[in-house]
Amino acid sequence: MSAQTQLSTHATTISRIVGSVVDAGRDILAKRRQNASLSAPSTELVAQCRELLEHRGEASGLALASEICDRFQTFDESDYHNFFECLATEFDVDNGDILQASSHYREEPSFYNLNALAKSVEAPRLKLFRRLNMAPNGTHVLVELRGHLLPLLKSKPHWRGVDTDLRHLFVSWFNKGFLEMRRIDWNSPAQVLEKIIDYEAVHEISGWDDLRNRLHQDRMCFAFFHPAMPDDPLVFVEIALTRGMPDAIAPLLSQDREQTEQHKFDTVVFYSISNCHPGLAGVSFGNFLIKHVVEEVRQEIPGIKTFVTLSPVPGFRSWLQQAEIGELVAGELADRVREPVTEVIAADVRDALMKLCAHYLLQVKSGTLAKDPVARFHLGNGAQLHRLNWGADLSAKGKEQSAGIMVNYLYDLDKIEVNHDAYFDQGEISASKAVRKLL
Amino acid sequence: MSAQTQLSTHATTISRIVGSVVDAGRDILAKRRQNASLSAPSTELVAQCRELLEHRGEASGLALASEICDRFQTFDESDYHNFFECLATEFDVDNGDILQASSHYREEPSFYNLNALAKSVEAPRLKLFRRLNMAPNGTHVLVELRGHLLPLLKSKPHWRGVDTDLRHLFVSWFNKGFLEMRRIDWNSPAQVLEKIIDYEAVHEISGWDDLRNRLHQDRMCFAFFHPAMPDDPLVFVEIALTRGMPDAIAPLLSQDREQTEQHKFDTVVFYSISNCHPGLAGVSFGNFLIKHVVEEVRQEIPGIKTFVTLSPVPGFRSWLQQAEIGELVAGELADRVREPVTEVIAADVRDALMKLCAHYLLQVKSGTLAKDPVARFHLGNGAQLHRLNWGADLSAKGKEQSAGIMVNYLYDLDKIEVNHDAYFDQGEISASKAVRKLL
Amino acid sequence: MSAQTQLSTHATTISRIVGSVVDAGRDILAKRRQNASLSAPSTELVAQCRELLEHRGEASGLALASEICDRFQTFDESDYHNFFECLATEFDVDNGDILQASSHYREEPSFYNLNALAKSVEAPRLKLFRRLNMAPNGTHVLVELRGHLLPLLKSKPHWRGVDTDLRHLFVSWFNKGFLEMRRIDWNSPAQVLEKIIDYEAVHEISGWDDLRNRLHQDRMCFAFFHPAMPDDPLVFVEIALTRGMPDAIAPLLSQDREQTEQHKFDTVVFYSISNCHPGLAGVSFGNFLIKHVVEEVRQEIPGIKTFVTLSPVPGFRSWLQQAEIGELVAGELADRVREPVTEVIAADVRDALMKLCAHYLLQVKSGTLAKDPVARFHLGNGAQLHRLNWGADLSAKGKEQSAGIMVNYLYDLDKIEVNHDAYFDQGEISASKAVRKLL
Amino acid sequence: MSAQTQLSTHATTISRIVGSVVDAGRDILAKRRQNASLSAPSTELVAQCRELLEHRGEASGLALASEICDRFQTFDESDYHNFFECLATEFDVDNGDILQASSHYREEPSFYNLNALAKSVEAPRLKLFRRLNMAPNGTHVLVELRGHLLPLLKSKPHWRGVDTDLRHLFVSWFNKGFLEMRRIDWNSPAQVLEKIIDYEAVHEISGWDDLRNRLHQDRMCFAFFHPAMPDDPLVFVEIALTRGMPDAIAPLLSQDREQTEQHKFDTVVFYSISNCHPGLAGVSFGNFLIKHVVEEVRQEIPGIKTFVTLSPVPGFRSWLQQAEIGELVAGELADRVREPVTEVIAADVRDALMKLCAHYLLQVKSGTLAKDPVARFHLGNGAQLHRLNWGADLSAKGKEQSAGIMVNYLYDLDKIEVNHDAYFDQGEISASKAVRKLL
Repeated sequence: MSAQTQLSTHATTISRIVGSVVDAGRDILAKRRQNASLSAPSTELVAQCRELLEHRGEASGLALASEICDRFQTFDESDYHNFFECLATEFDVDNGDILQASSHYREEPSFYNLNALAKSVEAPRLKLFRRLNMAPNGTHVLVELRGHLLPLLKSKPHWRGVDTDLRHLFVSWFNKGFLEMRRIDWNSPAQVLEKIIDYEAVHEISGWDDLRNRLHQDRMCFAFFHPAMPDDPLVFVEIALTRGMPDAIAPLLSQDREQTEQHKFDTVVFYSISNCHPGLAGVSFGNFLIKHVVEEVRQEIPGIKTFVTLSPVPGFRSWLQQAEIGELVAGELADRVREPVTEVIAADVRDALMKLCAHYLLQVKSGTLAKDPVARFHLGNGAQLHRLNWGADLSAKGKEQSAGIMVNYLYDLDKIEVNHDAYFDQGEISASKAVRKLL
Repeated sequence: MSAQTQLSTHATTISRIVGSVVDAGRDILAKRRQNASLSAPSTELVAQCRELLEHRGEASGLALASEICDRFQTFDESDYHNFFECLATEFDVDNGDILQASSHYREEPSFYNLNALAKSVEAPRLKLFRRLNMAPNGTHVLVELRGHLLPLLKSKPHWRGVDTDLRHLFVSWFNKGFLEMRRIDWNSPAQVLEKIIDYEAVHEISGWDDLRNRLHQDRMCFAFFHPAMPDDPLVFVEIALTRGMPDAIAPLLSQDREQTEQHKFDTVVFYSISNCHPGLAGVSFGNFLIKHVVEEVRQEIPGIKTFVTLSPVPGFRSWLQQAEIGELVAGELADRVREPVTEVIAADVRDALMKLCAHYLLQVKSGTLAKDPVARFHLGNGAQLHRLNWGADLSAKGKEQSAGIMVNYLYDLDKIEVNHDAYFDQGEISASKAVRKLL
Repeated sequence: MSAQTQLSTHATTISRIVGSVVDAGRDILAKRRQNASLSAPSTELVAQCRELLEHRGEASGLALASEICDRFQTFDESDYHNFFECLATEFDVDNGDILQASSHYREEPSFYNLNALAKSVEAPRLKLFRRLNMAPNGTHVLVELRGHLLPLLKSKPHWRGVDTDLRHLFVSWFNKGFLEMRRIDWNSPAQVLEKIIDYEAVHEISGWDDLRNRLHQDRMCFAFFHPAMPDDPLVFVEIALTRGMPDAIAPLLSQDREQTEQHKFDTVVFYSISNCHPGLAGVSFGNFLIKHVVEEVRQEIPGIKTFVTLSPVPGFRSWLQQAEIGELVAGELADRVREPVTEVIAADVRDALMKLCAHYLLQVKSGTLAKDPVARFHLGNGAQLHRLNWGADLSAKGKEQSAGIMVNYLYDLDKIEVNHDAYFDQGEISASKAVRKLL
Repeated sequence: MSAQTQLSTHATTISRIVGSVVDAGRDILAKRRQNASLSAPSTELVAQCRELLEHRGEASGLALASEICDRFQTFDESDYHNFFECLATEFDVDNGDILQASSHYREEPSFYNLNALAKSVEAPRLKLFRRLNMAPNGTHVLVELRGHLLPLLKSKPHWRGVDTDLRHLFVSWFNKGFLEMRRIDWNSPAQVLEKIIDYEAVHEISGWDDLRNRLHQDRMCFAFFHPAMPDDPLVFVEIALTRGMPDAIAPLLSQDREQTEQHKFDTVVFYSISNCHPGLAGVSFGNFLIKHVVEEVRQEIPGIKTFVTLSPVPGFRSWLQQAEIGELVAGELADRVREPVTEVIAADVRDALMKLCAHYLLQVKSGTLAKDPVARFHLGNGAQLHRLNWGADLSAKGKEQSAGIMVNYLYDLDKIEVNHDAYFDQGEISASKAVRKLL
């Protein structure tokens, strides 16, 4: 084969074809609407949604779904409000239908009546969402939609049904059986790397140089992807390979760090896990990702024995400000531990903060589970609370939230199931002696 | 880079990793069960299903799902019976729960009570299926499961709820937004091609040589795939590129056919569409596939103007045997048209059969739609009943089912939406003058 | 992304583009030649070759190269003869030029005169071949060309220069640094698998079922590819994973063999190595392939400790028929060992044949190296002559050539370099005690 | 398939394997050298080169090649000098051998003697380079080596033979039949994009944002790659899609430019072509790339009719400083046109500069070809000198070299072969009337 041409126009080709089906449909739609007068984006969009729900023709149905998806890009806040309101009312379940169906079922609990009842409790918006999902980029649009919805629920509790339905779909669509784990490295498409920079939520990536630094030979990054959003990670974890367990974050992130030789690594450090899409809140994959990564790295680098995190304690100081700590620290120390953390800290304050932090992590609960969100995540995965590190994160955020303390949670594969069960069944937190001693 | 090694062990690597997570979990499971006494596969499997439903640990949960999936391979008919019976009873909805939830909802139709009602009508087996889907190959196992179930429903109507739930999941998982169209050619993996040979349902493929013949330059094949079953097509269509509209199937399938030059093709003939998985019955993609293929081919070979099928009339002769045809054909002809079709047919019988076939396709309905399943499919897509071809399929099956007649359904992109609407709204069948004349 | 389309039309796209460049050039060529009268393919082709050599325009040059490459497909034996004759004469070096250039160099051995001399000894056909290589499929065409040439050299010694030049190019183009090792399995493109069936030279593959049998989980296949012939392997090796060293070929090839569990394998058996292109004779890669495969398998299945062949002794019986063996076997036994090998062999004949075979392998040389070609290959790679197996290949060919004996050559990675050096420096063959004892 | 893992560790795997072969060889080498005393890198490297030349064992040969390749990374200027000196002397041809071989040939011009003569004029370093190429990254190392060599040739003319041999190999290895054209876009690996930033030679890319700007929907980038350097482009061209022919560079590079709708583009502008490796000087592919890109874009965007460059005139002002221009411009204008170009230029100077530039491009030759290197490239490709644009490049470099003038060379596919022939045969430059008028 002479001078081959391998074009990365794959995506182009694909969207061109779907695009053509869409275009063909668009013409048909246009003819139907010649006299339609256009009004606010959300009003028109609702009309289109009604049309899509009743629609049967494939090509124009796809065109319609596609138009609706495009239209969201022009939405402002009030459009979203109007649309959510409509989803929550017009496209909601019909109370009368449910009552009737449940009456029938009560009279005769037959297969037919059960189906009718099940159908009556399913809001029409579910069907709408399923049809929107057929559009190119439909899945992404719906995930974004829920991202817009969630922060508004507090003030609009009657929109919760919309959230329930979207979440219901996402739990089904993002079933772990459908996810794909990929390694992210300097050979990954710029399009994906750019998103890693954007999404990093724990230790900000300052640009392409910093990113490259985090993808060196002594670093790794893994992400879950969904086939319908192939360039857009769902969750990713950043890893450092080290010799020994690290007790501070700065050396891990340093661009000038010394390079250890590959065969000397004995430890994997998970130092950052980021969920990428607010709209997927409650559709968890992080725990699964960590376990897959552990298996992956164990096979690739057999010498590695220790899997550990270096994690913040993000809820520590805000808890501290309002907690009753009189029994734990005496006198004026109780005031001093609440002061902003500075570079220089008196030894007694330091000891008190370490003790309080151990207390916070081990004994402060929300329900039966740890109050601290990061602790809740790792303990729920079956990890052990292994070590508290003083002065481990001296960034502004680190001092403000965690008093500069960072925690190593240990993933000991032989024990994570036992830990997991003990945690959920008896609310028991697995912790090393060293941590218990701090109390 | 010196002598590079590009191994197609990708799949191996993947399954090795998931396998390791599974293995790790298996050890844990083994410890828990040391004293379990094993009985019939289905009994044990039901016990495992119970365990999986209540399970929380990820690793051992995945191991459990995987064990269950593997176990189906050892199932005989009685095991399936036991298992379906159990799914239909033990894992069914709880009548009492539904009645209670509907009472509460009746008293107060709140968000909370609606959710509770919705939950009560969802059978626990749905959750079981979702968890099974996490196993490697889980999706495939569930599709097979429904394939086993469907033929049994007639004699076991109380298993219909199991079918409903599986179908519900499949409609969600196999949303068209998640499907991937791929071209199948001689460069495709043998693993996929082997399945094409197995699955071809219309005109059997006699082996690898015949397959290769159908993938020549004047032939094409397209299939839909789902990301969770990447080597296993869902539905595929076989295409011939021709000069002029074909009036018989044998020349299309001939391995000795003359090769037309690429630029002389003006017609695309869809001569075979096969659904691959009985377990996906009712989760339709065929219509969508044809439209995508039309767009694809239009772009790749701009010279092609006509898109047409060459299709059997599979229900014709069985209808003919029992139909009242006195008004259509007179006297003893009414008997002769019902005789087996042979190589030599009298002209009056031929004319009568063509007339009867046109009548059957245009006027014999099941509800408001065409009775013939192939006609129903293409007319439902908006195609036109374009031409009846006498002596077009002289295979045993062709003569037995269709009296050797084959039909060209025409896909005229400008008219398919209009045809589609007229067909579904007024039950009106689009047909060419030539076909109407036959009546 | 809605219903994605991933087409394997990559290759099509590529050839379409190159094709367009070619087409554009073709038009130009056509205009130039309007009055050309066409004669025998080879006459015309030679004219085109002259044109190509003098050509400067890129597009039409590529078109010309492409036309020439296509034309070979219509060649019969006499065309090849004419063409080779022309290559050997018209496109040969110019004796006068060489003499003049060497005179100049003799007078003044300057950089300039050296270059001129070097240029004069380079035949114009080299440039022709380089230009032909630019055509799509050019590399393949040239490899085929040499495949046609080689068998003719004996009767046409003055064509040897043509061979020398092609071989010179191939040694440069097929430098090991450019080769790519790929694993062949049931996921490989049918196009490649079909070639494996065709090319297998040692133990014929009887069809797709047999091939699939050789790609099961307990078998492997690896090949070298060149980027310019991406669907066409250069050399491949077939491997069996076994428990223990095998002593016969039939069980390895059996389609009914029992499946050993993966973790019980301890041995890799190379049971077939095939060079795919006669035109690449003398451009060896087999040794390199075996070593790469050993490394590859060691990493993938760490439990494997033994790497061994199961090889024929193809030259044994033809040597035996004409060798002086009086000193080795006495009396009438010397005649009986020469008789055709049947199913039942007397013990004394068997012992004598084993002894003679050991003698043949260890002491019969061609120059300083082993006379048997298979022995020469493996010993040259540094393998050890490890075991002779009686009755190991009872196929007609096996009995006819090797008296049914097969040999295990052992690849002991710690010793292959030492063995290699001893073999080439002192002509010393590494052999196990067991083999030496046979003498 | 449950949560798949697709790792981009391909490259890792590959280098691990080759690495293992290398490692195995390294141990062997180490044993042999236990008593070797190490000296300067270049001294030791020369010793290794000698060893490699005489070497036969594959594994340790590969290890040796690999060690040598690695060692270059530690080279300073004096090491390179020593090494080149050694290549030019110790690894040069043997004058005596040549004279003897040419004597023998003179006596009897046989096949054998011709081969011997051909062999004698081939310096041993050629074999050395071929063996080095087997190492991972060997091709790249050799390309870099020539990159170091070329600037030194002026002061070391006796090293020219080294250059000749490397170039000879590269012409063979980088045969256009082996190159691969790829589209570069935002989906390309960061590793490749980073190199595009580094290599851009015409209009510097200021960073990742600027790069992204050049890969927007209205821009394209294509590159040639060689399979042995898969992440490292050889030459690339940057393209702008525009409406109408552009007359200045700044709007093309602007990050704030307005986006034209895709279907309105009618022109392709090649605004930058960069060769990536100085070591490949004289192994040209740029012309071929442009023609491939033209075909590619014509197929992808059929609406595009005009293919044109926007090119500098890099040699204009340095020629102007020393040219005899008295006949072209009169009096003191002759001085003023030589002054540095500023933002504000008098009309008479502008007109004179345009005239002089047209003169320079059309009538100033180096031999029979255009003196200006950019003109020489495009005219040699068969392009037409179409338009001169005043004030088209107001960057410092643009004013300094080209007096701010830029040229549109037009690629009219119907005429490039005719133009090409006229240019090389009669030295005739194809130019538009508008340009001729300037004279």
